[in-house]
Amino acid sequence: MGSSAADGNGSVDKGVDFANYFCTYGFLYHQKEMLCDRVRMDAYYNAVFENKHHFSGKVVLDVGTGSGILAIWSAQAGARKVYAVEATKMSEHARQLIAANKLQHVVEVIEGSMEDVVLPEKVDVIISEWMGYFLLRESMFDSVICARDRWLKPDGVMYPSHARIWMSPIRSGLVDQKIRDYDGAMEDWHSFINDTKTFYGVDMSALTKPFDGEQKKYYLQTSIWNNLHPNQIIGKSVIIKEIDCLTTTVDDIRVVQASVSSSITEETARFCGFGGWFDVHFRGSEKNPAQQEIELTTAPDQDFGTHWGQQVFLLHPPQYLGSGDELTINFSMSRSKLNHRLMEVDLSCDIKQTSGKLLPPIQKKFYIE
Amino acid sequence: MGSSAADGNGSVDKGVDFANYFCTYGFLYHQKEMLCDRVRMDAYYNAVFENKHHFSGKVVLDVGTGSGILAIWSAQAGARKVYAVEATKMSEHARQLIAANKLQHVVEVIEGSMEDVVLPEKVDVIISEWMGYFLLRESMFDSVICARDRWLKPDGVMYPSHARIWMSPIRSGLVDQKIRDYDGAMEDWHSFINDTKTFYGVDMSALTKPFDGEQKKYYLQTSIWNNLHPNQIIGKSVIIKEIDCLTTTVDDIRVVQASVSSSITEETARFCGFGGWFDVHFRGSEKNPAQQEIELTTAPDQDFGTHWGQQVFLLHPPQYLGSGDELTINFSMSRSKLNHRLMEVDLSCDIKQTSGKLLPPIQKKFYIE
Ligand SMILES: Nc1ncnc2c1ncn2[C@@H]1O[C@H](CSCC[C@H](N)C(=O)O)[C@@H](O)[C@H]1O
Ligand SMILES: Nc1ncnc2c1ncn2[C@@H]1O[C@H](CSCC[C@H](N)C(=O)O)[C@@H](O)[C@H]1O
Repeated sequence: MGSSAADGNGSVDKGVDFANYFCTYGFLYHQKEMLCDRVRMDAYYNAVFENKHHFSGKVVLDVGTGSGILAIWSAQAGARKVYAVEATKMSEHARQLIAANKLQHVVEVIEGSMEDVVLPEKVDVIISEWMGYFLLRESMFDSVICARDRWLKPDGVMYPSHARIWMSPIRSGLVDQKIRDYDGAMEDWHSFINDTKTFYGVDMSALTKPFDGEQKKYYLQTSIWNNLHPNQIIGKSVIIKEIDCLTTTVDDIRVVQASVSSSITEETARFCGFGGWFDVHFRGSEKNPAQQEIELTTAPDQDFGTHWGQQVFLLHPPQYLGSGDELTINFSMSRSKLNHRLMEVDLSCDIKQTSGKLLPPIQKKFYIE
Repeated sequence: MGSSAADGNGSVDKGVDFANYFCTYGFLYHQKEMLCDRVRMDAYYNAVFENKHHFSGKVVLDVGTGSGILAIWSAQAGARKVYAVEATKMSEHARQLIAANKLQHVVEVIEGSMEDVVLPEKVDVIISEWMGYFLLRESMFDSVICARDRWLKPDGVMYPSHARIWMSPIRSGLVDQKIRDYDGAMEDWHSFINDTKTFYGVDMSALTKPFDGEQKKYYLQTSIWNNLHPNQIIGKSVIIKEIDCLTTTVDDIRVVQASVSSSITEETARFCGFGGWFDVHFRGSEKNPAQQEIELTTAPDQDFGTHWGQQVFLLHPPQYLGSGDELTINFSMSRSKLNHRLMEVDLSCDIKQTSGKLLPPIQKKFYIE
C-alpha cells in the first residue's frame, strides 16, 4: 500500500510519515514508556551529569526532544542555551514542562522537522535519543546527521558519540510457537476454502498461494521483539556495524552489510536463529573527550531489560549444534522500498561443524516492521 | 499530528488515507475476516441469488470489490457485465480469483479509487459492502454515493437499499473495567512523577493534566467494540438514523443528529451506557422492488455475532434505574476534524424516573476511533 506516496528512495511524503511514524510520539503515554526505561534514562542522565564540561556554558541542540527531558538535563548541567526541536505537538508539552521547571530562559522549544528548522547559531553539542529497534529502524539517525552537518560547530560533540549493532546465535521457543501459529492459520484457511465453496459456490483456492505468502511473511519472516534471557545466547556475539556519530553519512547506513563469523559456545544447543541488539557510547570526541565514558547497551540482561528489547530472527527448522561449530554469516539490511523507516534483512548462514561436516546453507529474508 | 494533511472538511490526502485506512484492506487476512462473517455473507448471498431478476442480463458495479466476492456472485446470478472497483492491490487477487472461477469475460476489475474511475457505461445495479463500525465509521458510503450519482441509471437499484442506525441502553461490566484501567494508569503516572523527581531531578507534574486528558479519552471516552449479549439490553432500542441509499447525499450523513426517547424495560437494571449497531436491507427500489427482501442486522444476538459487533458508549458512574424510567437522548455524530473516516459523538441524556424524579443530566463526548 501507499506505494504512490513513496519516492524512489523509499522515503515518504510528510503527511504519510506523520500518519505512520510521528503519530505515536504525539502521545504522552508513549513518551512515558521511554521515560520509564531506567537503563535508557540512567545512561543519558549519567552521560550529561558526569560530563558537565561538555554542557556548562555551551549551546546544545536536542534533536527530537519529545517531552523535553534531554533538553532539561542539558540546561540543568549548565548549558547557556538549548534548542529543543520536536516534530509533533509533543512540543507543547515540552514547553509546559520546561516552564514548570523554570528553564524557559535557557531552553527554546521549536516545533518542526529537524530538516526544516533554522537555528540562529551553531551548537557545541548535539544530544538526541534517535535509536529505534535494532538501532536503525525508524531511520531517525538521518535527521541527526542532517542536524550535525548543518548546525554542529567543527569541534562539537555528539551525544551519543558511537553506536554498534550486534548479533548472536540463540535458542528460542518462539520458533515452535511461530510455526504453530503459521500452521494454524493455514489449516484455518483450508477449512475456509471448503466452506466458501460449499456454502457460497466460490472456489477460493486460487488465493491459497498469496495467502500463504502473506502468513509466512507475518509469522516466519518478520523479526520479533523479544526480551532475551542471557542463557538464550548460544554462541559468540558479533558486531555487524560500528557507527561514529560524528562522521557517519546517510550513505554509510542506508545499507548495512557484514560478513562475520561466529561459533557455538554451548556443548549442545538448539540453534533457532539470531538475536540482534545495539549499544551506544557517550565518549565525546577525540579533541574533546568525555570525562566519564558512559555506555547504553540493549544486550540481553537478566535483570535490566530496555524497552528496545532485542530483535529475533528465527530460522526454521531449528538445528542442534555443538560447541565449536562455526557459523559464517552474511548479513545485509536495507530500508523497505515503501517506507524508509522499516527495514529488510537478507541473511545467509553457512554452518561448518567441528567434524568438518558442512550443513545445508541457510538463506532467508526478514522484515523489521 | 497529521493536521497538516487534513483539509477543512477533515478529509485527508490520498497518501495519508492509504496509510491510515486502505492499508489493512490490502491484506488477504483482513478480507478473509469479512469473508468468514457468515451473517454478512448469507445476507449478501441471499440478496443476490433470491433476486436474480435484478442481476440477470444487467450491468453491475461493485464499489470496493476487495477479494471480488460480490462481483463474482453478481456474475453467477447472470449479470451481463460487472465492473469491480478496488482501490488497493487486493484488485490483483480479485482478478486472479475471478479468472480461476472463469468469470473474466463478465467481471472487469478496475484498480483505483471509485472517485477517479471512469466506466464505459451506466449501470443497473450498484452493490457494495461499505458499512463500517456503527454503520458510518470509515465514511465509505461517500464513495458509494459518488458512484451512484455518476454511474447509476435513473431506474437503477442499490444493494443494499436502506440502512438504519440503532441505539439502546445497556448494562456492561466494561464500565468497571475501564474505570479500573484508567485509575491504574493514573496511579502508575503518579509513581512515575515521584520516581522522575527522585532519580532524575525533573518535576513532571506539569504534565499530569494533559496525561490525564489523554488517558480519559482513551479509557473513558472512546467507544468500544463489543459483542453484546441480548440480555445486556435493558431498555427500548431506538432508531437514530434512517438512510435511503438511493437518495441520501453526503450532506445528509456528514452529521447525524437525533433526539429520541427510550425507556428502561427491566425491573431494575444497572444503566451503564448505550450500545449502538446498524442494519441494512435489500429491498430493491420502489419501481424495481426485490422479490425477496433481505435483512442484514448487527444487533446483539445470542448465537450469530458479526465482525462489526456493537459499539459501546459507557457512562460513568453507572446508575440503577427501574422499569418505565424515561431517557431523553440527544445524539450528534460528526466526522473527526483530523480524519474524516473517524467519528465524534456528543451524547446527552436526561433521565426521568417513574417517581417523577429527574436525575442529574448526563453529557459526554465520545470518539469512535
Ligand atoms: N526529523 C525530526 N524532527 C523533529 N523531531 C523528530 C524528528 N524525528 C523524530 N523526532 C522526534 O524525536 C523523538 C524521538 S523519542 C525521544 C524523545 C526524548 N528525546 C527522550 O529522550 O525521551 C520523538 O518525539 C519524535 O517525534
Ligand atoms: N473509494 C474507494 N474506491 C475503491 N475501493 C474502495 C473505496 N473505499 C473503500 N474501498 C475498498 O472497499 C473494500 C470494502 S470491504 C468489502 C470487500 C468486498 N466487497 C466484500 O464484501 O467482501 C475494501 O477492499 C476497500 O479497499
